[in-house]
Amino acid sequence: MSAGNTFGHLFRVTTFGESHGGAVGCVIDGCPPRITISEEEIEFELKRRATGQSNLSSGRKEEDKVHILSGVFERQTLGTPICMLVYNKDARPQDYLYLKDKYRPSHADYTYQQKYGIRAWSGGGRTSARETTARVMAGALAKKILKQKFGIEILSFVSRIKNISAKIDYNSISLEIIESNVVRCPDQEAAKKMEDLIIQTKAQGNSLGGVITCIVRSCPIGLGEPVFDRLEAELAHALMSLPATKGFEIGSGFSGTYLTGLEHNDEFYVDHNGKIRTKTNNSGGIQGGISNGEDIIMNIAFKPTSTIMNPQKTVNEKGEEILLDKVSGRHDPCVLPRAVPMVDAMVALVLLDHYLRHKAQCL
Amino acid sequence: MSAGNTFGHLFRVTTFGESHGGAVGCVIDGCPPRITISEEEIEFELKRRATGQSNLSSGRKEEDKVHILSGVFERQTLGTPICMLVYNKDARPQDYLYLKDKYRPSHADYTYQQKYGIRAWSGGGRTSARETTARVMAGALAKKILKQKFGIEILSFVSRIKNISAKIDYNSISLEIIESNVVRCPDQEAAKKMEDLIIQTKAQGNSLGGVITCIVRSCPIGLGEPVFDRLEAELAHALMSLPATKGFEIGSGFSGTYLTGLEHNDEFYVDHNGKIRTKTNNSGGIQGGISNGEDIIMNIAFKPTSTIMNPQKTVNEKGEEILLDKVSGRHDPCVLPRAVPMVDAMVALVLLDHYLRHKAQCL
Amino acid sequence: MSAGNTFGHLFRVTTFGESHGGAVGCVIDGCPPRITISEEEIEFELKRRATGQSNLSSGRKEEDKVHILSGVFERQTLGTPICMLVYNKDARPQDYLYLKDKYRPSHADYTYQQKYGIRAWSGGGRTSARETTARVMAGALAKKILKQKFGIEILSFVSRIKNISAKIDYNSISLEIIESNVVRCPDQEAAKKMEDLIIQTKAQGNSLGGVITCIVRSCPIGLGEPVFDRLEAELAHALMSLPATKGFEIGSGFSGTYLTGLEHNDEFYVDHNGKIRTKTNNSGGIQGGISNGEDIIMNIAFKPTSTIMNPQKTVNEKGEEILLDKVSGRHDPCVLPRAVPMVDAMVALVLLDHYLRHKAQCL
Amino acid sequence: MSAGNTFGHLFRVTTFGESHGGAVGCVIDGCPPRITISEEEIEFELKRRATGQSNLSSGRKEEDKVHILSGVFERQTLGTPICMLVYNKDARPQDYLYLKDKYRPSHADYTYQQKYGIRAWSGGGRTSARETTARVMAGALAKKILKQKFGIEILSFVSRIKNISAKIDYNSISLEIIESNVVRCPDQEAAKKMEDLIIQTKAQGNSLGGVITCIVRSCPIGLGEPVFDRLEAELAHALMSLPATKGFEIGSGFSGTYLTGLEHNDEFYVDHNGKIRTKTNNSGGIQGGISNGEDIIMNIAFKPTSTIMNPQKTVNEKGEEILLDKVSGRHDPCVLPRAVPMVDAMVALVLLDHYLRHKAQCL
Repeated sequence: MSAGNTFGHLFRVTTFGESHGGAVGCVIDGCPPRITISEEEIEFELKRRATGQSNLSSGRKEEDKVHILSGVFERQTLGTPICMLVYNKDARPQDYLYLKDKYRPSHADYTYQQKYGIRAWSGGGRTSARETTARVMAGALAKKILKQKFGIEILSFVSRIKNISAKIDYNSISLEIIESNVVRCPDQEAAKKMEDLIIQTKAQGNSLGGVITCIVRSCPIGLGEPVFDRLEAELAHALMSLPATKGFEIGSGFSGTYLTGLEHNDEFYVDHNGKIRTKTNNSGGIQGGISNGEDIIMNIAFKPTSTIMNPQKTVNEKGEEILLDKVSGRHDPCVLPRAVPMVDAMVALVLLDHYLRHKAQCL
Repeated sequence: MSAGNTFGHLFRVTTFGESHGGAVGCVIDGCPPRITISEEEIEFELKRRATGQSNLSSGRKEEDKVHILSGVFERQTLGTPICMLVYNKDARPQDYLYLKDKYRPSHADYTYQQKYGIRAWSGGGRTSARETTARVMAGALAKKILKQKFGIEILSFVSRIKNISAKIDYNSISLEIIESNVVRCPDQEAAKKMEDLIIQTKAQGNSLGGVITCIVRSCPIGLGEPVFDRLEAELAHALMSLPATKGFEIGSGFSGTYLTGLEHNDEFYVDHNGKIRTKTNNSGGIQGGISNGEDIIMNIAFKPTSTIMNPQKTVNEKGEEILLDKVSGRHDPCVLPRAVPMVDAMVALVLLDHYLRHKAQCL
Repeated sequence: MSAGNTFGHLFRVTTFGESHGGAVGCVIDGCPPRITISEEEIEFELKRRATGQSNLSSGRKEEDKVHILSGVFERQTLGTPICMLVYNKDARPQDYLYLKDKYRPSHADYTYQQKYGIRAWSGGGRTSARETTARVMAGALAKKILKQKFGIEILSFVSRIKNISAKIDYNSISLEIIESNVVRCPDQEAAKKMEDLIIQTKAQGNSLGGVITCIVRSCPIGLGEPVFDRLEAELAHALMSLPATKGFEIGSGFSGTYLTGLEHNDEFYVDHNGKIRTKTNNSGGIQGGISNGEDIIMNIAFKPTSTIMNPQKTVNEKGEEILLDKVSGRHDPCVLPRAVPMVDAMVALVLLDHYLRHKAQCL
Repeated sequence: MSAGNTFGHLFRVTTFGESHGGAVGCVIDGCPPRITISEEEIEFELKRRATGQSNLSSGRKEEDKVHILSGVFERQTLGTPICMLVYNKDARPQDYLYLKDKYRPSHADYTYQQKYGIRAWSGGGRTSARETTARVMAGALAKKILKQKFGIEILSFVSRIKNISAKIDYNSISLEIIESNVVRCPDQEAAKKMEDLIIQTKAQGNSLGGVITCIVRSCPIGLGEPVFDRLEAELAHALMSLPATKGFEIGSGFSGTYLTGLEHNDEFYVDHNGKIRTKTNNSGGIQGGISNGEDIIMNIAFKPTSTIMNPQKTVNEKGEEILLDKVSGRHDPCVLPRAVPMVDAMVALVLLDHYLRHKAQCL
């Protein structure tokens, strides 16, 4: 609990693994028993996160074959810890040797070295986005449980790249539509423009950022643990723990601050099924830190990728100013398309953990 | 750890108290021993949070006299749990009787009732902003330790109310300047406009939101616990746990997503003291989840206060649609001026906790 | 979680308070909502722990009036944190002034001073048995919930004082029988001998130890969280955290190590209700770390009270060897009779916490 | 934290693995960076725990080759999570098929089935002593750090098998002497008798229990976190979490309860180095829950192995009474010799975790 590699209270995920070490994986403790799960189901989500899936992403080739080493017996969870991992195969440490003593701008090289007095300089070590493989594995299991038990649907997608915004009707979104283009943006027209911009930017050795939006449908009422573990606080925590994130919004977010209370308040009404609903959803599905049954809606800002192919000034371990000609190694010019399943995963981990917490105390 | 009323891992704060119960307070476990602290020092911060401090805030009069019931001996912390509380004096439960069975729009009445099957309807109970008194008490102690041990300065201020933005040179800010006007905005001209707008909006029975910015100076390098407890993730958690928050940004935030990597990257250089610094600070003082020694800069969005004096449609406990004529009870038309010390407090709690975590593993 | 003043994972109790500070109390987070509870019910258990209840115990007079400051509304738990405390009234710090710089043998004076560099020397501060008041308060609530929800009965009693052992038929024990004498030993004949020995030892300024046995009836099957939080491991933790404890046994305990497997194994059978039971109960109600529905049976060793009225050699803060004439201050010559409700309380806290943990994952 | 497969607060060990699954291993989060460690060092301790090391233990042949998959870079810890595992090679699930629906007496079959509604019946699954491999791996790392940083020595040994007690001068013990016979008892004469008794009992298809004693030398003063995480409470927790344990004693233990306070109190004196010491050590190196610098001395009771080769009555999953002819599968007639390194490991985990906790708050 001092070091921060465990997420969740009751559905607890501990991840491990450096980019070029033996493996990247997770141990999940607290998973309900008798859930049917297979390595194939986990791999389905992993493939969405994988490198080399399109011309937009890093050329690193990882087979990402999932090995479930424990906690599952005859395809059923046992209630004991589940260790899942993928071995690192296509690691090329030698590609990174020239970076061994250099601090790449806006990377974690400098801060890791200062904090730990050591760092796995090869491939970024623990700071590589490869770490998120473990999150996606755990999230895949959580997503399955949420879907099966409550019909919860978590749908993340790219809503903006730089200044290209998608126009989206939230009700029309589905996993199929999201997956229908390489950018994972449900507005096909915008998606095409985004793709073009990413390719063009990559050609310039530059990089891009943007916004991912996540919608949760059919979330049960009552999830969230005030006062400190309000649902939005834990979602913010989860999502801001992803590499490259710079901002988080729930519901009306920053734009809601331009409204008055009269405009912003979500009036309650009773729908034709006798269910209490809100007319608007500026709250984003959470009131007083607790889910209210409306769609949960979030935005997450991702900065432009730090790894760029242009020369940059920086400093080395000896404290000398140097010119970093260009950073080789494999990388994405824009992390957002591959970050979509990471967002899905983190949201799933929060919701399942909160469901178990709610169940423990109140149900 | 199921219920969410404890914050922090090593400097652990558990808060308690309903708006109209016996008291609101906290227990701090893990405070370093032999820290000099007095009730007066805690009260100094509490007064900044108190109601009735200006024409902008609720008329509730709470003396907010701090009682330290344990953990301090002859003005020194013992290393044992510190219980601090303020008794509730000016509670007027009868004012809220008419709300007993009604769900106020965008409040937590409905979700608390659904989650717990019961709620302290009087004064909002646990959901009242009065709960934050306990956070400010604990934060006051944390702030003192951070200041004394490291010279860390935490400076929060109002940077925007609705569409009135302050123009601020970050280097010129001080606590004195922030406290020089009732809005707690360092741009005096903007502050005056904000004050006028708040008074005018209050007169209309309406409410306002806006943005608080927080700057942390002299934060030591090395704080933050990747991968899940990156410093920005825990700051987001802490700040999004405050009532009425809708968004969080670190460094360049959402606006940084409009830049390319070439524009956004913070190049390193060596300053005239031989210290490694960054030329720009789009990272907001945190890289790879770990503080890099630059100023930490955050924005937090606060929605317009839910309590308004205008009639609203809503639903009661029986599931009937009703008209809520107007909500009486005491409240603020804009929470931001009083939320400034709350932001200070939460940031202090995160930083001190992370310092202890870093010390435990790495120092 | 660094400092150790919180017990439990889901039913979490944080205690606070020094012997001569303002108050001793606890905050409970995670209590299920809508439990009926009153201050009188808490006080019932507190009275069993109180000083001055017989000629066997310390003369300190504490009214021990319970104040529930939060978390309860109209006699029902809210699901929010419950702060309960008793104020310290009959504190006489001046009685302890002469001990300020001296280390009493087998007390915590020396180790607290070494650990924290400071200690509340008055009345033992945090190390006083007065601290256990808070445990008994929290335990009283846990006991009530366990009784009401599952019919669980927790019955602790004194089974040995020095070499006077009680003869006890476990099936005949009830709270009434335990409370029928001042020693809290269900064997009335042994109880009388124990009482005489305690009075005689007190007259000699000396002190006694012994064993408390605890039986839990009607514990549901399935409590316990292997591999580290096996039910017996957490019971051991809980009970060995009580002041003056030196040993813990579950089921056959140390004496079981003299048997062979053939003698020790508890064979299963089906009782006339079709329920799976064990013929013997050497396991003490727990197998593989999980409750099996049989009675849980434990023994806890308490050392003779450290405070004695005879001169002892010791050392002071300056590192000088001194003679401690006699230790005044109020104390018990034998802690066991008053420790009985403490054992009850700790066992209740473990069982309720484990029930909630089990419910979260498996039910 | 609901499910109990993580141990420790700051040096946190999560174990995973079933007896006949893919692997058994652990993830350690919070290990200080820049500790030199190799797979060979871990294997040294593992070999002490391994099956097949003498005629006293199970014939299962596991190579127990350690794989460090993460957290170590060029033989140095990185401060990131360390995943270590051994693959299961000599698993023979078919040997256990006949037990699939039967509840072995005094095993965990019944309680696991009741708790989780499923169990890995092959080889005992998670309840197999094979699980402790992971503890020994983590403990080996902790032992090394403790030895290197503080010169702490942890020496566990068999002090009694059934009614054969060893005569032991605590000062004369060393790892070499402990390892000089297959029983791991430093009294060579007693060891021979124990060995004979174990072999004879094995021949009868029966099993034995006994007591392991553990001595910790050179423990720094100040470890332990009152009130709930007193050092002895956490040691009790750690050791009672080992399979087959039935009792725990610190210092004088149960026998101390036969003494009076005058006899039991440990008087302080100043030794010739000016160090404050105690003349006797009934406290067992811990006072008020905090280490006082004297040797820490513990006894742990292990019951006779549940697996025996004699027919026993029991019940199957259908609730039918059956006769279990004999239990095949590989097992030890007496677990104590192989449990010695497990005790070492758990004690090391507690002490290192407590050192980090103490450091975080007080140093």
